[in-house]
Amino acid sequence: MKTYRKELWFETRTRRAFINITPKVEECLAESGIREGLCLVSAMHITASVFINDDESGLHRDFEAWLEKLAPEKPYSQYAHNGAEDNADAHLKRSVMGREVVAAVSDGRLDFGPWEQIFYGEFDGRRRKRVLVKIIGE
Amino acid sequence: MKTYRKELWFETRTRRAFINITPKVEECLAESGIREGLCLVSAMHITASVFINDDESGLHRDFEAWLEKLAPEKPYSQYAHNGAEDNADAHLKRSVMGREVVAAVSDGRLDFGPWEQIFYGEFDGRRRKRVLVKIIGE
Amino acid sequence: MKTYRKELWFETRTRRAFINITPKVEECLAESGIREGLCLVSAMHITASVFINDDESGLHRDFEAWLEKLAPEKPYSQYAHNGAEDNADAHLKRSVMGREVVAAVSDGRLDFGPWEQIFYGEFDGRRRKRVLVKIIGE
Repeated sequence: MKTYRKELWFETRTRRAFINITPKVEECLAESGIREGLCLVSAMHITASVFINDDESGLHRDFEAWLEKLAPEKPYSQYAHNGAEDNADAHLKRSVMGREVVAAVSDGRLDFGPWEQIFYGEFDGRRRKRVLVKIIGE
Repeated sequence: MKTYRKELWFETRTRRAFINITPKVEECLAESGIREGLCLVSAMHITASVFINDDESGLHRDFEAWLEKLAPEKPYSQYAHNGAEDNADAHLKRSVMGREVVAAVSDGRLDFGPWEQIFYGEFDGRRRKRVLVKIIGE
Repeated sequence: MKTYRKELWFETRTRRAFINITPKVEECLAESGIREGLCLVSAMHITASVFINDDESGLHRDFEAWLEKLAPEKPYSQYAHNGAEDNADAHLKRSVMGREVVAAVSDGRLDFGPWEQIFYGEFDGRRRKRVLVKIIGE
């Protein structure tokens, strides 16, 4: 069995952002030399997500508006977690979108449908944060 | 290490549907010959889900009503993604229900609690769509 | 390839509760002797979750209030699933928070960011329920 590990770093200029990280994960996979197995991509921070969806800017605006409706950022005082921090909404938003993705690796490639793209979802940005890529297989 | 891969195809007659795919995944597992490992079951389309819950028709009606409340299909114009397409709500619903399930394989079986059943959740059906089953182990 | 399996049992005194199970999963990992691989932690019941977030009591109160807003427990009659049972809301809450976590195992440890902690999320407690830990690797 082979294993591979890499951290990807991000620092967004806005509080919230969606970044397509598929090419970076594909680079990891090529570097790993693994041709059959599973690839875990997970947010190492609890106010960020890794998820799979469409790379379409209208949809990303819909996600932003929808998550703000389900778990609004403001007023900060509505959340018990806020005080020293102001990011309770980011913890909730990340819960909706998910922490991690597990992708199949088949024949040396991410085994995806035609529109599947991996995104880093940032909900409390403007600082350096990490995503873990762990691949196991052979 | 052994690996196994299969695609399951679906075409629902309605826009939304829940289909119990546990027997199909069990067939895959038997075919794989794998007795210890992990089994990934993932939607290859970004307007569909794979999730684990109860096979109870009342609950499925509750899921339908609840997802329509969280992310209503109509009016289509409420979503920036819609225009050429009308399925923005399906992308959001799938985000709530999840893309994938990772199940343990122990002693040649899906290692499940008594009520765990795997479902394909279709949110934009009436066309052929796929689920990937990838099993690794030995 | 090595594999390891263990069930963790819980019985909460309240209907809903969040329990930090990170130390228990770390014990499992030590017991397994696995140093590189993947660790699946999943709820074996469909009214409970396993998820990763912050061990902060204010945030847990926020989760409780937020989930009650998204999928209220009462009135029980609002859900088709209820009748013989009264736990439809628990099925919905668990869908938001997720069934399972897949963690990377690197150098014999859970490969986590600084604040990642694994929680058992109970939404229909006051009875004995289980979590499965399955680790594969070498």
